[in-house]
Amino acid sequence: MSRTVEVTELVLRDAHQSLMATRMTMEDMVPACEDIDKAGFWSVECWGGATYDSCIRFLNEDPWERLRTFRKLMPNSRLQMLLRGQNLLGYRHYEDSVVDRFVDKSAENGMDVFRVFDALNDPRNLKRSMEAVKRTGKWAEGTICYTTSPLHTVEKFVELAQRLKDMGSASICIKDMAALLRPEPAYEIVRGIKEKCGEDTLVHVHVHSTTGVTLVSLMKAIEAGADIVDTAISSLSLGPGHNPTEALIEMLKGTGYETKLDKGRLLKIKEHFAKVRPRYAEFESKIYGVETEIFDSQIPGGMISNMESQLRQQGAGDRLKEVLAEVPRVRKDAGYPPLVTPSSQIVGTQAVFNVLMGEYKALTGEFADLMLGYYGETIAERAPEVIAAAEKHAKKSPITCRPADLLKPEWEVLDKAAKALPGDNGSPEDTLTYAMFPQVAPKFFAHREEGPKDPCKSPASAAAKAASPGAKGVDGAGSITGPVTYDVQIGDKMHKVTVQPA
Amino acid sequence: MSRTVEVTELVLRDAHQSLMATRMTMEDMVPACEDIDKAGFWSVECWGGATYDSCIRFLNEDPWERLRTFRKLMPNSRLQMLLRGQNLLGYRHYEDSVVDRFVDKSAENGMDVFRVFDALNDPRNLKRSMEAVKRTGKWAEGTICYTTSPLHTVEKFVELAQRLKDMGSASICIKDMAALLRPEPAYEIVRGIKEKCGEDTLVHVHVHSTTGVTLVSLMKAIEAGADIVDTAISSLSLGPGHNPTEALIEMLKGTGYETKLDKGRLLKIKEHFAKVRPRYAEFESKIYGVETEIFDSQIPGGMISNMESQLRQQGAGDRLKEVLAEVPRVRKDAGYPPLVTPSSQIVGTQAVFNVLMGEYKALTGEFADLMLGYYGETIAERAPEVIAAAEKHAKKSPITCRPADLLKPEWEVLDKAAKALPGDNGSPEDTLTYAMFPQVAPKFFAHREEGPKDPCKSPASAAAKAASPGAKGVDGAGSITGPVTYDVQIGDKMHKVTVQPA
Repeated sequence: MSRTVEVTELVLRDAHQSLMATRMTMEDMVPACEDIDKAGFWSVECWGGATYDSCIRFLNEDPWERLRTFRKLMPNSRLQMLLRGQNLLGYRHYEDSVVDRFVDKSAENGMDVFRVFDALNDPRNLKRSMEAVKRTGKWAEGTICYTTSPLHTVEKFVELAQRLKDMGSASICIKDMAALLRPEPAYEIVRGIKEKCGEDTLVHVHVHSTTGVTLVSLMKAIEAGADIVDTAISSLSLGPGHNPTEALIEMLKGTGYETKLDKGRLLKIKEHFAKVRPRYAEFESKIYGVETEIFDSQIPGGMISNMESQLRQQGAGDRLKEVLAEVPRVRKDAGYPPLVTPSSQIVGTQAVFNVLMGEYKALTGEFADLMLGYYGETIAERAPEVIAAAEKHAKKSPITCRPADLLKPEWEVLDKAAKALPGDNGSPEDTLTYAMFPQVAPKFFAHREEGPKDPCKSPASAAAKAASPGAKGVDGAGSITGPVTYDVQIGDKMHKVTVQPA
Repeated sequence: MSRTVEVTELVLRDAHQSLMATRMTMEDMVPACEDIDKAGFWSVECWGGATYDSCIRFLNEDPWERLRTFRKLMPNSRLQMLLRGQNLLGYRHYEDSVVDRFVDKSAENGMDVFRVFDALNDPRNLKRSMEAVKRTGKWAEGTICYTTSPLHTVEKFVELAQRLKDMGSASICIKDMAALLRPEPAYEIVRGIKEKCGEDTLVHVHVHSTTGVTLVSLMKAIEAGADIVDTAISSLSLGPGHNPTEALIEMLKGTGYETKLDKGRLLKIKEHFAKVRPRYAEFESKIYGVETEIFDSQIPGGMISNMESQLRQQGAGDRLKEVLAEVPRVRKDAGYPPLVTPSSQIVGTQAVFNVLMGEYKALTGEFADLMLGYYGETIAERAPEVIAAAEKHAKKSPITCRPADLLKPEWEVLDKAAKALPGDNGSPEDTLTYAMFPQVAPKFFAHREEGPKDPCKSPASAAAKAASPGAKGVDGAGSITGPVTYDVQIGDKMHKVTVQPA
């Protein structure tokens, strides 16, 4: 008797987010939906922060319309989304009534499974959205962001799982966004959860393939009792993406585990995306094959390229090694947050500042907030002297409460502002779009009528950006000579900081 | 206490053979040799049939000089080669004295480990070369070609391992050239060998990564007791190549197994080949990512592209599906040979003939020889009616003896013919080059003085070939109208066959 392992297919969300900058258009997904719907997946991940953002920023597609189309084309499937807890799909904490409305509307438009996570693994940041999901009768999946540090022991992860279960998680997800989950801890954590939270606790494992070891980790997680695993169809797999769905099936043959997937359908899905992929060549990740250095550096590939471009803008492209060495120190001072949006950008940018200006001579507002507790609790204590610097910089006190408790009701304000925008269609969905992407929504509303745009026909402006002249205060040789003004984008928000050499 | 797993690095032979048509020049390998030599590998695979062939056919490098250079640059390493048993590095059986001389000269020039295999897994075809290796005091590794069929049970593979051990194998290699070895049989076969042949029997596992599952198979093989595994540095890994060396190390962390490899050295090797690889873009395999269809079709990717080009030459490019369905039937009639050089080409070409002309209406000489036992014994009985057809076609009788027993001493003849060629340097090594590649050696000898050629500067003539006009006997619409003459290349030999429609 074989045990069935269930599978979540990632091709419609995380696969193209990881491999082609989230650019895939609905037009390129529609032809595969029937086969995906009938292939036997436990769920189909198809929505999240980056796809929503890309829809309105690059593709001129309404993300809600995309969701409704998936619902219509995949009537037999659980649709799944990734939700950043109290951040929803944006980059700041939202007040609880906005959280409730977002979840209600998502459920109403067809979402079934909500994978809820918080960048700091602070359960208080997941609580409200989990409750909202449960109220709609949909599936609330509490999530553990996997990372490594002296504090991140198997016991700590298992404890967190228990807290998520106590909050009513229908399943527990182990989310390994940086492909750091080796086979041995994969086994230990899944086994630990099963033993502590009960063998009937559903464990769902999400891994990326960047480091090349994580299909083995899935094998070990399954041996330890994992119930559901995430993969992507082979033609949109590997590299910074995920393990191939077909390889999972073949790996399990004869082991006492099996999937319920239909290989004929998978072949059709594979062939479809193999045909589609070359259209997006200009957006393809530059990481091919395998990068194992991240096990030592703790720094995901995407974060390195961000920091490189920040350094180049300051004429300091040669100081990357110093920054790479600085990141683990900053992460330690900040209480060992997992490095995932937005904490990876916050820590990375601060490391750049420390190298260029001296340790904590200049702080971004976001880093100060992180140090002061405005993103939530961290696993380790944060460095007191850096907290003091943050207090001085941000002119506010540290907090220990749930960050969203400090927010005033904001739905009415957001709703009014959204409805005032030309092209807003008066729906709560449009208000949510505005709430989450206030800088992008106005342009999207104004041009929505023009219909979907093909990103492959408008060459990226990246090249032009890369060639932009050095910032003021930087001389021709790339040395910093006076006060420098930085434009730092964290998530959706541009951040202007002027600092002097230490 | 961790158990040490030893590692063979493939980058200098099988990695570039699998990923870039064996084109890597010595010039691009030399800078990495010191790091490879000091990284802590059990052995460094660096020589074999395809690299030898490519040296004299494309690179104008003397393969013996290449071997001597490796020997000089890697004084601390075991150098390893792949030897096709009685075929040596060529495509036919050689008489025993040629086998002896080849092994002697390879040992003398610096080879340490001889991995000896036979395409049919007939131990009689390995015996002479294994004996020759042992006489030189070098390491003789008897090899099992892994394949799947109703006859290829774990018990059969273990039995074969025992025979190889009885023949004096210092270690047993499981060679999975088509990435068909799933985790479960990997475990069972290694465990079976350890239990039957003794726990101290060294087991060496070679897998390709084409199907995406074989790093998991290595994990399982290691759990079952495998002593040495083959990998390639990450920047020349994956796809139809091999699992990344660095991923193996990381996978094992915490599992109770560890390698002795130096990660600092590996990073330098990785960076070197990452820099070198783009030079060979025109030779890159078109398979990227993962292909799992081979588990069902049994047909390696390279074999499919061969058959496709044969079909196109006959104006029958649309009949590939019929040929793919025919291959397993032909393989069954031929006694389920593993599909590896040269059996994959022989079976594939016969399948093309069967589809175009009717079942066994036309036979290649090689297929007739295979049916009549001239390549050795197969695991299953061969189809009697096809043996009868082969007897008629080839006008010779089936044999059951070791094929090489029928050969007359040939060293003197080969030596004389080689020495008569302009540019032959009078060495036994040159005679061996001529013996193995009689059609390529004359040109190589004549031009050797000109020194190494950079293959990346002479665009491949593949495009021109693909555009060649259809064969005589094929009308404009691609239908076969009369007798057709086929030029079929099997290994080094061109084969002309004229057949009529059935």
